[in-house]
Amino acid sequence: MGKVLVIGIGPGTPEYLCRRAEEALGEAEVVFGYTSYIRQLQRFFPEKHYVATPMREEKARCRMALKEAQAGRTAALVSSGDAGIYGMAGLLYEELLAGRRDGKFGRVEVEVIPGVTAAGMAAAVLGAPLMHDFCVISLSDLLTPWELIERRLALAAEGDFVICLYNPGSKGRPGHLRRAAEVLLRTRAADTPVGIVRDAGRAGQEAQLTTLAGLPPVWTDMHAVVVVGNSATFVEDGRMVTPRGYRR
Amino acid sequence: MGKVLVIGIGPGTPEYLCRRAEEALGEAEVVFGYTSYIRQLQRFFPEKHYVATPMREEKARCRMALKEAQAGRTAALVSSGDAGIYGMAGLLYEELLAGRRDGKFGRVEVEVIPGVTAAGMAAAVLGAPLMHDFCVISLSDLLTPWELIERRLALAAEGDFVICLYNPGSKGRPGHLRRAAEVLLRTRAADTPVGIVRDAGRAGQEAQLTTLAGLPPVWTDMHAVVVVGNSATFVEDGRMVTPRGYRR
Repeated sequence: MGKVLVIGIGPGTPEYLCRRAEEALGEAEVVFGYTSYIRQLQRFFPEKHYVATPMREEKARCRMALKEAQAGRTAALVSSGDAGIYGMAGLLYEELLAGRRDGKFGRVEVEVIPGVTAAGMAAAVLGAPLMHDFCVISLSDLLTPWELIERRLALAAEGDFVICLYNPGSKGRPGHLRRAAEVLLRTRAADTPVGIVRDAGRAGQEAQLTTLAGLPPVWTDMHAVVVVGNSATFVEDGRMVTPRGYRR
Repeated sequence: MGKVLVIGIGPGTPEYLCRRAEEALGEAEVVFGYTSYIRQLQRFFPEKHYVATPMREEKARCRMALKEAQAGRTAALVSSGDAGIYGMAGLLYEELLAGRRDGKFGRVEVEVIPGVTAAGMAAAVLGAPLMHDFCVISLSDLLTPWELIERRLALAAEGDFVICLYNPGSKGRPGHLRRAAEVLLRTRAADTPVGIVRDAGRAGQEAQLTTLAGLPPVWTDMHAVVVVGNSATFVEDGRMVTPRGYRR
């Protein structure tokens, strides 16, 4: 019985790997993942058989992992953060299920191993901004219409959610964070605290506290998470904190 | 220099503890937490000095931890799941900052150690429901007006977010999940997939797949997480999957 272990590796350092994730990496006969995550893992677990694939080849990566499992082997498929939060888990299941409709992969098992998602790691760095209801919204419009992303931003702001923005920017999309801030500013105060963490939990981690009016900062890219506070969020002594309720 | 280590213990079993969380438990001279989480930890790390406090005494718990740190010791403060997601981190910082305004705790350090939050653990059990934008909403109206909770539910549904409901019910609040489902049903289809996981990641874990119209199930309590899919979420072979985008 072959297996695919879909593992969230968190920031990618051993510190934030859970025991089950480490065990699973140990069990795997081959480890598939995006090139830069494989490089991270190679530093800490050098004695593994790794297969690195570039961005935009996620389907092929899933198929390779399933092919190993179909042959009775244990394959690991790694994602940064949590594998089920914008990670590889969904695509792996879609490929598995499509294959099963064609009579394949009937004896392949899948285990998804959760990890520390970027919002959780960024929040731990910033203080405690996620202590109340929050939304996670990706600013990547590769597979999602920008109109829907804007609508979600507007509704999240209206609901006074704390808002975590994943994929806030990249070389190809420098204006997305500015446009997102404009949408949020229609309903939220200009001085709403905003925390930005780049490479949270990794060497080279950078954190910055600003406000909605202060977005976008000079630097931002896909390695950053932006956390926009709700109307009760405050900053004191360099810590961003959202209270648990509304009885202050 | 005393320290408070605010640790997210995930589901509470060693499998889903990250290395830094285990290290931190090892460093701590005393561990503070809610009674049932302390009992969990005691099974796996029996040789620690634990101080268990009941629910509703969180402020006292934070103050005890800060008092230890003020005296130069290392105290751990544990939360289920992620300490920064409806956990102890926010209250600990609020107590710390209030104390600092009074001239106390100037030499106390705080480190928040992220963990696997309940939504991430439940998602890993259900399949891959969190592959797109999602909201996390607590149905506990202890500190938050129910009208605001309903408004957030309505806005989240309108935005076609995947919606994770924390604290879906308890002995004192049996009707909250039913009312939440009614709000969601104003905008979302009755056959929207819903996954419910109780005690995710623990012995005794139970998972159920149903639909919005099928809520609430016979059983639900504060140990459960309810995950409501978006309009593209589907169930196949017992797995709940949300596609990454909208180009199907």
